[in-house]
Amino acid sequence: MNDLDVTALVKEVVSRLGAKSSDFEVEASGRHVHLDRPTIDALFGEGYQLTKAKDLSQPGQYACKERISLVGPKGVLRNVIILGPERNAAQVEVSATDAMVLGTKAPVRESGDITGTPGVLLMNGAKAVQLDKGLIVAKRHVHMTEEDAAANNVVQGEIVQVRVEGQRPLIFDDVVIRVNPKFATFMHIDYDEANACGFVKGTRGTIIKKTV
Amino acid sequence: MNDLDVTALVKEVVSRLGAKSSDFEVEASGRHVHLDRPTIDALFGEGYQLTKAKDLSQPGQYACKERISLVGPKGVLRNVIILGPERNAAQVEVSATDAMVLGTKAPVRESGDITGTPGVLLMNGAKAVQLDKGLIVAKRHVHMTEEDAAANNVVQGEIVQVRVEGQRPLIFDDVVIRVNPKFATFMHIDYDEANACGFVKGTRGTIIKKTV
Repeated sequence: MNDLDVTALVKEVVSRLGAKSSDFEVEASGRHVHLDRPTIDALFGEGYQLTKAKDLSQPGQYACKERISLVGPKGVLRNVIILGPERNAAQVEVSATDAMVLGTKAPVRESGDITGTPGVLLMNGAKAVQLDKGLIVAKRHVHMTEEDAAANNVVQGEIVQVRVEGQRPLIFDDVVIRVNPKFATFMHIDYDEANACGFVKGTRGTIIKKTV
Repeated sequence: MNDLDVTALVKEVVSRLGAKSSDFEVEASGRHVHLDRPTIDALFGEGYQLTKAKDLSQPGQYACKERISLVGPKGVLRNVIILGPERNAAQVEVSATDAMVLGTKAPVRESGDITGTPGVLLMNGAKAVQLDKGLIVAKRHVHMTEEDAAANNVVQGEIVQVRVEGQRPLIFDDVVIRVNPKFATFMHIDYDEANACGFVKGTRGTIIKKTV
């Protein structure tokens, strides 16, 4: 095997590994809850409408003005943000650090996949709701438009690696691609992951395909 | 270029990337301090000798019985462990999450490289010492015996990637190799990094060489 062969083939391997994918912005998600109608009724009063405070990067998603507390066996997290709109099931997304503060083990799950997850107590002032499930650490993921998915040669549900060039660069493995025409292209990680990669606003990620 | 060429060359590339390195145990380091003689004198009394509580994985290093508090502009971290033996300069190692609790920005640095880093207030009961520097987030690193360094084809100071197969697998980039005949081979990450990779006791890492 001569040197020319090696150069050409390294190029071929790199090309097949998809190193030319376009990059995208990474966002760090803090702890937050999604609420369903019964939980809103119980925490804020029958028929209460949450107040939109700020649009998020994903179209139609927003942060609400109202905040609640998460109460676990060992600790409390106060002033936790509620994201709208309402969902069909309440879901609480925390970091592993947060779960340790609460004193509960939260499994890493994709949003919506809450079967068999632990519950947690939600409080708004003196009003409380004990969820019987829904506490998760969100699995890192990339929201993608159909156009960006095509451009990056990935499909809905595909597992990829993502190189993140923060102050502490790393390559996240086991990142799930979520494609939807309603999405904007952003990667979401939690604050443990953000701290581990030296995330700052504007940090970008690049897909590395797992299969050649 | 025929298929045989590709197969042979992928093998060659993978081989040069050092994919066959032996693995090693990863340890998560919680927040801790190293103290120098003047700081021990000020916090515990002239000539006080710290009490060894438990040996650490690195030969000669140990956790002490005594604990102190770290006081920052926004918060306090209590019950912080002191690692022995004494050093020539006090150094406080925290996670980025901890630094946020303290309200101070701590730079990512290698142990001992504390020039220009922020200080922090140390307290033992009513006794206090204001450090003028030494607060860092420890840069992730692999302690290696000379034998393991040779076996993994790495040298002191080399920057490598390390694949960590936790519940949330990832590849840490910008990992520094530290070789010393007094070391035992262990990778050290902080708790943000541990949470980001789904670390549990026994999690192992494998070196990926950065240069072909």
